[in-house]
Amino acid sequence: MRLREDEVVRPDGGSGIYGVVEVANPAVFVVALTDDDEVVLVHLYRYTTGRWSIEVPAGSTDGEDALVAARRELAEETGLEAAEWIRVGGMSSLNGICDAPEHVFLARGLRPVGGGAAATRATQEEEGIADVRRVPFGEVLAMIGRGEIVDAETMAAMLHVAVHLGRVR
Amino acid sequence: MRLREDEVVRPDGGSGIYGVVEVANPAVFVVALTDDDEVVLVHLYRYTTGRWSIEVPAGSTDGEDALVAARRELAEETGLEAAEWIRVGGMSSLNGICDAPEHVFLARGLRPVGGGAAATRATQEEEGIADVRRVPFGEVLAMIGRGEIVDAETMAAMLHVAVHLGRVR
Repeated sequence: MRLREDEVVRPDGGSGIYGVVEVANPAVFVVALTDDDEVVLVHLYRYTTGRWSIEVPAGSTDGEDALVAARRELAEETGLEAAEWIRVGGMSSLNGICDAPEHVFLARGLRPVGGGAAATRATQEEEGIADVRRVPFGEVLAMIGRGEIVDAETMAAMLHVAVHLGRVR
Repeated sequence: MRLREDEVVRPDGGSGIYGVVEVANPAVFVVALTDDDEVVLVHLYRYTTGRWSIEVPAGSTDGEDALVAARRELAEETGLEAAEWIRVGGMSSLNGICDAPEHVFLARGLRPVGGGAAATRATQEEEGIADVRRVPFGEVLAMIGRGEIVDAETMAAMLHVAVHLGRVR
């Protein structure tokens, strides 16, 4: 990421400095749904906030196609691959200070990545992932309501999927 | 905001630099719901992304109580006050790079702020708000599905409210 400071003219005509955090590459977020309506979540330590966090698998595109990145992040963080991938939407986080484009995918038809358990464990350790959980969709919503999930992108990704599946009205 | 660069030891034992964007004060997001199940949205230009965006009213707490900030942002951005305020949850955005705590409020029992129309127009101009819209809750969801709303915090705030009201399963 990069912090850019622009000299700007404000809407009221005054001049000022506008700081923009540029996120180098779009990020991807994956709502992986099992045949039993469970969401696959990762439990990891977030250095930035100093807290443990429960989130959907996610990562940066590193410049490649968003779907390629989504497949890689799901495999690396959870050891799973999916038969069905749907891009359910895009979003932009903290757009008052950041330029951070994001893609949300729904992944279904899950199965373990062939022969990838050791690689998965290595990546999980690198990324600080303590464990992977399968949580019923309704229980994920309850965890959000109880404040046990606080990651805003996980919430936004869940809403995208709920809209796509007609589960919110 | 402030960009901090820490020397860290990574989970794999290597050393590195971890950049953290510190957002000075928590932010507040307000889902203001009319008696006719409409959500009050603002339409504003986002300098960071270079795009127009449709969002729930929001802003920084400037260090005061979150509810005080939520009342002020709703009044300043939309000219409305609310009889009922519920803090439906908290969240944290872009927690891979930012420490940005946020509060989400549901505001109901809406009415125009007494004698505040001129002040509201001045603030709207300062903040680049072109107009204020009342959009049925279900239509807000459809706009998210169609990619007409891309603000991630608006989505997360809508999910918090949908969970609170039992509208998602």
